[in-house]
Amino acid sequence: MSAVVDLNSDMGESFGPYTLGQDDALLDWISSANVACGFHGGDPRVMGATVALAQEKGVAVGAHPSFPDLVGFGRRDMVMTPDEISTDLLYQLGALDAFCRVAGVPLRHVKPHGALYNRIAADATLARAVAQTIALYRRDLILVGLPGTAVERAAAVVGIPFAREGFADRAYNDDGTLVSRRIAGALITDPAQVARRAVRMVLRGTATTLLGGEVALQADTICIHGDTPGAPELARTVRAALEANGIAIRPIVEVLERRASTNRLAGAAPPPPAPGT
Amino acid sequence: MSAVVDLNSDMGESFGPYTLGQDDALLDWISSANVACGFHGGDPRVMGATVALAQEKGVAVGAHPSFPDLVGFGRRDMVMTPDEISTDLLYQLGALDAFCRVAGVPLRHVKPHGALYNRIAADATLARAVAQTIALYRRDLILVGLPGTAVERAAAVVGIPFAREGFADRAYNDDGTLVSRRIAGALITDPAQVARRAVRMVLRGTATTLLGGEVALQADTICIHGDTPGAPELARTVRAALEANGIAIRPIVEVLERRASTNRLAGAAPPPPAPGT
Amino acid sequence: MSAVVDLNSDMGESFGPYTLGQDDALLDWISSANVACGFHGGDPRVMGATVALAQEKGVAVGAHPSFPDLVGFGRRDMVMTPDEISTDLLYQLGALDAFCRVAGVPLRHVKPHGALYNRIAADATLARAVAQTIALYRRDLILVGLPGTAVERAAAVVGIPFAREGFADRAYNDDGTLVSRRIAGALITDPAQVARRAVRMVLRGTATTLLGGEVALQADTICIHGDTPGAPELARTVRAALEANGIAIRPIVEVLERRASTNRLAGAAPPPPAPGT
Amino acid sequence: MSAVVDLNSDMGESFGPYTLGQDDALLDWISSANVACGFHGGDPRVMGATVALAQEKGVAVGAHPSFPDLVGFGRRDMVMTPDEISTDLLYQLGALDAFCRVAGVPLRHVKPHGALYNRIAADATLARAVAQTIALYRRDLILVGLPGTAVERAAAVVGIPFAREGFADRAYNDDGTLVSRRIAGALITDPAQVARRAVRMVLRGTATTLLGGEVALQADTICIHGDTPGAPELARTVRAALEANGIAIRPIVEVLERRASTNRLAGAAPPPPAPGT
Repeated sequence: MSAVVDLNSDMGESFGPYTLGQDDALLDWISSANVACGFHGGDPRVMGATVALAQEKGVAVGAHPSFPDLVGFGRRDMVMTPDEISTDLLYQLGALDAFCRVAGVPLRHVKPHGALYNRIAADATLARAVAQTIALYRRDLILVGLPGTAVERAAAVVGIPFAREGFADRAYNDDGTLVSRRIAGALITDPAQVARRAVRMVLRGTATTLLGGEVALQADTICIHGDTPGAPELARTVRAALEANGIAIRPIVEVLERRASTNRLAGAAPPPPAPGT
Repeated sequence: MSAVVDLNSDMGESFGPYTLGQDDALLDWISSANVACGFHGGDPRVMGATVALAQEKGVAVGAHPSFPDLVGFGRRDMVMTPDEISTDLLYQLGALDAFCRVAGVPLRHVKPHGALYNRIAADATLARAVAQTIALYRRDLILVGLPGTAVERAAAVVGIPFAREGFADRAYNDDGTLVSRRIAGALITDPAQVARRAVRMVLRGTATTLLGGEVALQADTICIHGDTPGAPELARTVRAALEANGIAIRPIVEVLERRASTNRLAGAAPPPPAPGT
Repeated sequence: MSAVVDLNSDMGESFGPYTLGQDDALLDWISSANVACGFHGGDPRVMGATVALAQEKGVAVGAHPSFPDLVGFGRRDMVMTPDEISTDLLYQLGALDAFCRVAGVPLRHVKPHGALYNRIAADATLARAVAQTIALYRRDLILVGLPGTAVERAAAVVGIPFAREGFADRAYNDDGTLVSRRIAGALITDPAQVARRAVRMVLRGTATTLLGGEVALQADTICIHGDTPGAPELARTVRAALEANGIAIRPIVEVLERRASTNRLAGAAPPPPAPGT
Repeated sequence: MSAVVDLNSDMGESFGPYTLGQDDALLDWISSANVACGFHGGDPRVMGATVALAQEKGVAVGAHPSFPDLVGFGRRDMVMTPDEISTDLLYQLGALDAFCRVAGVPLRHVKPHGALYNRIAADATLARAVAQTIALYRRDLILVGLPGTAVERAAAVVGIPFAREGFADRAYNDDGTLVSRRIAGALITDPAQVARRAVRMVLRGTATTLLGGEVALQADTICIHGDTPGAPELARTVRAALEANGIAIRPIVEVLERRASTNRLAGAAPPPPAPGT
């Protein structure tokens, strides 16, 4: 059975008169679009246009909710209660879902943005709030997050599907965490190298560490950062390399179905949540 | 066949640390709650709590969308394109609908707020944009507006249900328009008098004008303004007077069904849209 | 030489249609108004009206800047860089100062709000950023903060005047820190008791701890919380008790001048910054 | 006596993660920077950096205040009261002035942005509110606006200096008003042609109309639009052409001083306000 993986990218982060990213070009190469919901970027016009474009290009649509921090682009950590996280999330899910409904595409997944993404990798209480809110809204929405962290465990406990995200353009530490962006070598910018790392991640389930070793890293979806000038070219290169290695690019929902079916064939139990942070 | 009418009130207009209105007390007397969606008032916590309270008290939930103007409370007219109106509306509808979904209550109606309400009574293009957006989102959502104006005609043309709103605490001009708030006598504050006007509006289909005459005014729903200190007492008085006169208080959807069924029994054609502004 | 102290209160925290606090009544009893600058509360109308009212009643005007978090009322901690803190502070200082200039009153002091107040009591880097920004803007602006913490030391190092704030309605721990609001007994609500504590704070330089002991607490200004129903009555009671004990209520600048002059008379060195956090 | 004119450009309209315009390159060619104040673009970081850059390059700094409409970039007309206009303006003036004070540059002028600019050209009441607010804040601040309209008359009545703005890249109607952007030929994009028009505007005091005629147009300052890709090159071309024709590029304050001195030499009365709208 051939390998599959999803390619996801953050989208719809323009706002009012301001343009960010190259959504149109990126949508030719990815299989999942995480659409900003207005709290860190995006506005109703941008959301409508982005969902319509994804629909047109056959790319799966997910929500990309954030802390409420437009000027900080959702990158600043904020102390929020589980109820604040939950209600802000519901508001954003519903707002985006309205554009999906009108465009006739299903909302497929939720990938929290920036500081919220990092926070629920580390904070079990807030991770639980996010997973429970998604479950209340729609039990089949897929939560996308950092594997082996609080958010994967929260999804497992609450019982919603979880997609493990890998970063082909980021160096990993020996324990499987990401190397901080402030450390030299943390970011890999050569498209060919990023493509090789993506292929290895899917075929061997590993990532190369900063020190040259290998660490286990199962990824259902690989993130293509869209905020660099060469993002569409990078996406094209990664996709071509994956396909040249017999790896199919499919939306997350198909990747998870394949994983589940493989597990069943192997008589395997579903993968246990990773050990604690 | 006994008369019915809906009592509606704007709700959920508190924000962050700020409390506005007496939603809890009002919800004991009304049948429809128009819940603010965050653009002129309301925030995700307030929206969640308001929808939950309405659900608990058996009051129908509708959206109360606005121009994006928190500091101006949505009361300042803004020049917006049909696309801006439409996307802002979709965003707000979806956001509120998420809280409805989680609370297990259907979203029933849409009553635009403040300057947007007035604007689509006068501007046929924007009224059409609002009606079409609602139709795209959910064809059975009821649009609530000023009868005999552009918004009623837009609903008819687009083919979505429309509820005619009457104001028992406002004086009317001879042509059926509302007397400007800046004119003495425009606001009626005595609960007994408001109650009498509400009863007459339902039973006789008329309103008393500023000059003492009568003007035809068919109302499917009567607005109870919630931003005055005595609002809950006013609502109680109006409801009691209506019921004492054999008028049942029912959510808008039931009022419209009753109207349709009465029209069918009478062999009547559906009411034509009122003549142009 | 008779004792003096300042009474300060947070003001101008209304926003758009929302009213908070009883500024008008409180201004009859206090000597310093900390005026919100639009980031957690307040808007340009409210700012103008509040400064005008303070001017009319002869109350000294200060800025009450905040993290940018209207919906959270500036009470949620945010991770911000020194540059973000500094530029947000400058923006707010200037905005308020424009209203002071037009009203013909000097801007006298700066009391950070909510989470920012607490943050710079604990974080030396951000406290330094705040003190340096104030020094750049106007070297004689008085920074108001929690005595014995990072903010007092930052003011001393940067060389701007600092006013030590005491809370007569809050219980203190044995080490001089405030008892968390979540602990029973943390808030003192009886006006007579608050008044007694205020008098003792000024005359003896101590506060009673939760366990009944005494801890040294020198306060140049005592905070009157304005967000409780009885705030004006509390302010009146505290002021009356202070005056009955021969304590004059004067704006912070006069309190600091008195302190400096007393220190000179005593041949004392200026008070050293309190030991580290 | 040689001719002088100011070249102005809107600046500092980036926001959070979003970059707009090429401020750095433009500042090499212009003499006045109109800095956004956060209501339609700009944030405290951007404001600080823009003022510092203008200071470094010796360009005069002015405020570029707007209606409060970030998502609409201040381009949507809003119904606002004189008090709302006035207090929003004061807030923005003060906020920007704080960055000027810290950078050690004087705030020199005020050029309202977008819909506000157009509004006060047409609405005498709001134009008066703007002029009076500026006068209250600082009587020597120069108001920049469309000559021959309500804003010029308001400045004259209130008694604050006014700079007449010309647009070298826009076609004019025979009555001296700007041709609507929606009409073909309204925008002139060829740098050489724009430069020729700028020279003629200064030396002959006329602009070529859409139909090829000439209309009187005295300009103290010529706007260089910064939001087109070739803006810095256009600015360079216009400046070179002006200088090649013996026209000096000077900040507005010097242009107005020169005008006043020329009027005195000629024994002329100050120019009367243009006739009413």
